[in-house]
Parts: sequence; C-alpha cells; structure tokens
Amino acid sequence: MKAALIIIGNEILSGRTKDKNLAYLAEWLNEIGIQLYEVRVIRDDENEIIDCVNLLRRKYNYVFTTGGIGPTHDDITTESIAKAFNVELETNPEALKILQSYYKEGELNEARLKMTLLPKGAELVENPVTKAPGFKMKNVFVMAGIPSIMQGMLEGAKIFLKIGNKMTSKSIDVFMPESYVAEELSKIQDNYPEVEIGSYPFNKEGQFGTSLVMRSVNLNVLELCASDVTEMAKKLG
Amino acid sequence: MKAALIIIGNEILSGRTKDKNLAYLAEWLNEIGIQLYEVRVIRDDENEIIDCVNLLRRKYNYVFTTGGIGPTHDDITTESIAKAFNVELETNPEALKILQSYYKEGELNEARLKMTLLPKGAELVENPVTKAPGFKMKNVFVMAGIPSIMQGMLEGAKIFLKIGNKMTSKSIDVFMPESYVAEELSKIQDNYPEVEIGSYPFNKEGQFGTSLVMRSVNLNVLELCASDVTEMAKKLG
Repeated sequence: MKAALIIIGNEILSGRTKDKNLAYLAEWLNEIGIQLYEVRVIRDDENEIIDCVNLLRRKYNYVFTTGGIGPTHDDITTESIAKAFNVELETNPEALKILQSYYKEGELNEARLKMTLLPKGAELVENPVTKAPGFKMKNVFVMAGIPSIMQGMLEGAKIFLKIGNKMTSKSIDVFMPESYVAEELSKIQDNYPEVEIGSYPFNKEGQFGTSLVMRSVNLNVLELCASDVTEMAKKLG
Repeated sequence: MKAALIIIGNEILSGRTKDKNLAYLAEWLNEIGIQLYEVRVIRDDENEIIDCVNLLRRKYNYVFTTGGIGPTHDDITTESIAKAFNVELETNPEALKILQSYYKEGELNEARLKMTLLPKGAELVENPVTKAPGFKMKNVFVMAGIPSIMQGMLEGAKIFLKIGNKMTSKSIDVFMPESYVAEELSKIQDNYPEVEIGSYPFNKEGQFGTSLVMRSVNLNVLELCASDVTEMAKKLG
C-alpha cells in the first residue's frame, strides 16, 4: 500500500510556516502498513492542484492533501478538487448540519457556509477539533493544514483505509564515520534485498557516528540483517 | 526568478528524519529575490530522481537538491544526476585535491573517494563544513542533506545565482476568526492583484486570531494594501 501527500500552501513555500504534517503522516501511515512514497509541496494555484491530484491519485493507492480548505479567498483546495474530479460543488447536507449544531445563532456566516460546499460525491472526514469536516473523493483525502486539525481528521479517515503490511525498523549506532562502514554495509544490503538499509551520520553532543537504519515488512529477515550489521560493527571496532 | 527543491531520501518519507532544509532554503532564496515555487520529496530511487530533475530543471530557473551525496550505498543522487544529464561520472581533480588536503594519510578510503566522482562538466559548490563538495550541473545545485552542511553549501552556490526582486512581507494580526474577515479581505485581494494575501488562523497561548500576511515585490503597493487591511481590521472591531 503506497500513498502520496500533497501539501498545499504558499505559506509553506515562503518559509513562513514550518510543515509538521509530513513527518506525522509518515509515521501514522506506517503504523497501519501504508508507506508514504512521495510528497509534493505546491502553491495555492488551481491548475497546480488539479494536475498534481490527478497525477498522484492514479499513481498511488491513497493521496492525502493538507491545506486550503478554510473560509477565506486563499482557500481554493476544495474547488480545485471538484475540478480535478470534474464534478460540481454543492452544499453537503451533513456538513451543513454539523456546522449548524456547532455554531450559535448568527455565527454561521457566509464564509463559514463556504466550508459546507463540497464536491458532488464527497464523503465526510470527521473533524473533532473545529468541526468543519475534511472529505474524501475516491482515494483522495482532503484535510486541513493546521496540524492539530489534520491529526484529528486522520483518525476520521482511518475507517476508509485498507491496512497493509507494517514496515518495522531497527537502528544500530556505530561510533565511526560512514565511510568506514560503507563497503561492508553495501555487501549486507546486497544480501538482503528485502531490507532497506540507510546510513545517516550523526553528531550527538559532540559524539560523531553513524546510524544504520534497517526497514522491512519481513520481521525474520530484518532480524537476520540486524545481526549481520551488529557483527560488522563489532568487527570494524 | 523561480526555484524548486527536490528533497531526496527515504528517511524523510519514513518520518525518521524531520526535514529542516525547506524552510531554510525558502527564506534564504527570498532574501536574494528568488521564489521557491515547488518542493518534491522523493525516494532514493534512480528513476524517480532522473525524472524529477529533468522535469523541474526545465520548468524553473533553478533546482536545488538535498541528500544522497555521501559515501554509502544508499547515496545515489550524484550518479542519478549524471544519468539525468546523460554524462559519465569522472574523478573531479579539484574535488580530489580538496579531500587529499583535508584527510590525513590513509584516511581517504575508497568510500570517501566516491565523493570525488562527479558528473562530467560539474562545477564545484564549496562545503565549508566537511569539505566533500556539492556541485552544479547547469541550473541544478546538488547539495548534502545534513542541514549545517547544506547551509554552508548554499553560501557557496550564491556566486552562481542571479539576484531577482525580493518579496517583502507584512503581517497584521487580528483577534477574530478568519470567517469574520473573509469577505472584506477578498475584496482587498481583488484590489491588489500584485499582492499575495494569505490568512492563517493562530492560537497564541489561548488567544485565538488570524494572521493576515501580505507579500509583494512592489513595496509601494504593499504599503497601500497593508493600510487597507489595517483599516478593515479597525472597522470590524
């Protein structure tokens, strides 16, 4: 099971807002056996959104989008998704009911009503935080950009997702430079095509070293690989 | 002047490593008048890298890549870039000289020598931190993924970059929900097509409100727009 994330928003590309959704989604998906394969950060631009959604929804099992579903003029994601799927926007009666019961008399102004206009055929994704729901069109999940809301919506999206094989990871730290393990590690990688081995230098409070990270859906093979890596680390000192 | 960033690395997509380069690059580029228009995070996969680089280098003035230029088996960016440009890898004499003078006798092992193999025609991008250089192929800048090294390389890349028009931003906080300013703000946006206006809800220690962020390369127009937004905020309370 493979997924892609589309982060929509000029504020991320300008550096004003630091994205926190990528790392959260990656770990959350991995817990249910779905691997994040690709992420794109794009502008609040209708054509960019349409092209990106239409490309990635055909390439991956699931696509998640964050950002641009609020009440202001710069929130153009929902309308762009409708265009990507070639359907009209319509007032979603369920979304309307949710906002009517959440807001007090007179608070449900026109801008907030905009958030009940969803693409025809959309299924709601619950928002436990601020109520205005996210939605799903086929395999595309459209969520808010604010991390706490996005995280809540993910729980709502869970019922729609097929569970895959969970990727388990093991990490072994060695206190030597990457280049000292490179040759042996490459041989181990060749022996374990089912394991994805990564090598990441670190500096932990002045202690330099390398984290050797192994990931696989096959636990037995992962154990064997980890024991070879441990052996190698001992041998190299 | 428009740029794209390609973040290369399974460790970002698995959530293990939190990317810090996007926000840094965005702000750094903006200081010299280049706008970051698109970011892609892709796997350590040769075909993905080749396709992505070849697409984006034709679409934008500059492309920056981070990650995958180290000494281990999972560092495949340099070779993939060579393939994207359809050239061979060759020992870069200048890179070799740098590493020879940096490492002590016997320390320049085979894995480290791998970092002197660069695409034919590459120009070096200095690395003040760990010396192994980044490089430039036409409008593509290939840099390390470790933030401190990437930041050093950016300074080295500066001499190659054409300076554009700097985007200046102004931010006005209002202590009301987005939906209360949505209508008026949309009108102001219509009046100032040269200004990019974004609306971002915040929660600052329990104080809820909305940041209204205006960005433009035209300072005069930005001032006028900001004064209209200030007027609006006063009017709405």
